[in-house]
Amino acid sequence: MSRPTLEFWYEFASTYSYLSAMRIEREAEAAGIAIRWRPFLLGPIFAAQGWTTSPFNLSPAKGRYMWRDMEREAETLGLPCRQPDPFPQNSLLPARVALLGADAGWGPAFTKAVFRAEFGEGRSIADPDLIASLLRNLGLDDKAVLAAAQSDTNKARLKAQGDEARERGIFGAPTFIAPDGEMFWGNDRLDRALAWVAKVSRAG
Amino acid sequence: MSRPTLEFWYEFASTYSYLSAMRIEREAEAAGIAIRWRPFLLGPIFAAQGWTTSPFNLSPAKGRYMWRDMEREAETLGLPCRQPDPFPQNSLLPARVALLGADAGWGPAFTKAVFRAEFGEGRSIADPDLIASLLRNLGLDDKAVLAAAQSDTNKARLKAQGDEARERGIFGAPTFIAPDGEMFWGNDRLDRALAWVAKVSRAG
Repeated sequence: MSRPTLEFWYEFASTYSYLSAMRIEREAEAAGIAIRWRPFLLGPIFAAQGWTTSPFNLSPAKGRYMWRDMEREAETLGLPCRQPDPFPQNSLLPARVALLGADAGWGPAFTKAVFRAEFGEGRSIADPDLIASLLRNLGLDDKAVLAAAQSDTNKARLKAQGDEARERGIFGAPTFIAPDGEMFWGNDRLDRALAWVAKVSRAG
Repeated sequence: MSRPTLEFWYEFASTYSYLSAMRIEREAEAAGIAIRWRPFLLGPIFAAQGWTTSPFNLSPAKGRYMWRDMEREAETLGLPCRQPDPFPQNSLLPARVALLGADAGWGPAFTKAVFRAEFGEGRSIADPDLIASLLRNLGLDDKAVLAAAQSDTNKARLKAQGDEARERGIFGAPTFIAPDGEMFWGNDRLDRALAWVAKVSRAG
């Protein structure tokens, strides 16, 4: 019998997506639930609301609080926390690569490596050399992967992924979607999302 | 020995402030912590960011999600959940009354009655007749209380309370502040805020 699946929609520029990415496999495994990793870009969705940057930059008080909250939450999870400069990072290249990796099987490992570099070490994930080195660390052919990630086909797929996110009502990241369409927003809702999937799959 | 105190900053138009108001006494009691109830108005803080209404109205997708999330969270707490019309409600009058009540001792009971009418029954809290009836239900002289609440002195006090909120970096509601200044935003952080107060008061 196949496991019920929770969709995990994440954005590499999103701080709370980092916290979820680093813990979701452990928690999903404990709940007997599979995860479908779905990288997407929030930028176009924010832009459609008239936002030109992260909401944490639009409100400086909210931004200061968010970084303090991230420090506390990361410490609770035993994770390092550093601010990349600039924030938010341009996440286009790693999102294209992660989308490719989602099908090939190395998507989760690549995703965690990107988040660790960005919010654990404060590195710039827009740097192609960094992305290439993370791919090599996974035993992959970085040149071949980067060429495929930058192909017109894959660029169009990432755009379609973003369109799907907006059409399904996604407005932030991380967002979790259960098989029955129930949506949960934010790292704080991961536990509720997993419990929901377990409940509806028992009932189904 | 007096109990350590957690400040509870809340806004009557805020849905998640409702959830916190209805559970904070029970949870604080269990943790041996006292609560200082601090009503304030978020409108001027939002306006300073260029927002003219609730962020849940500025993004329709976020607004739809918020109401679904409220339904789920209210159900978990055994609370009713109804949308008042319009949303957000004008919270000026109940905020002035609650500020008066915070000193007189009936502030928490009044606050819970307002939130229950608004988000449990969908009633309009800008209606002076509703506020008067809630005061009478508490055995208070509604005419005397409303006159004091609308006095220039009390109006100025509520304005000062809002200025203090902004100066201390508050950008949303509910917000919890520990004696050492540590800030926690959102109903989802109430447990962490209480644990923080317990920790710093043991260390002090």
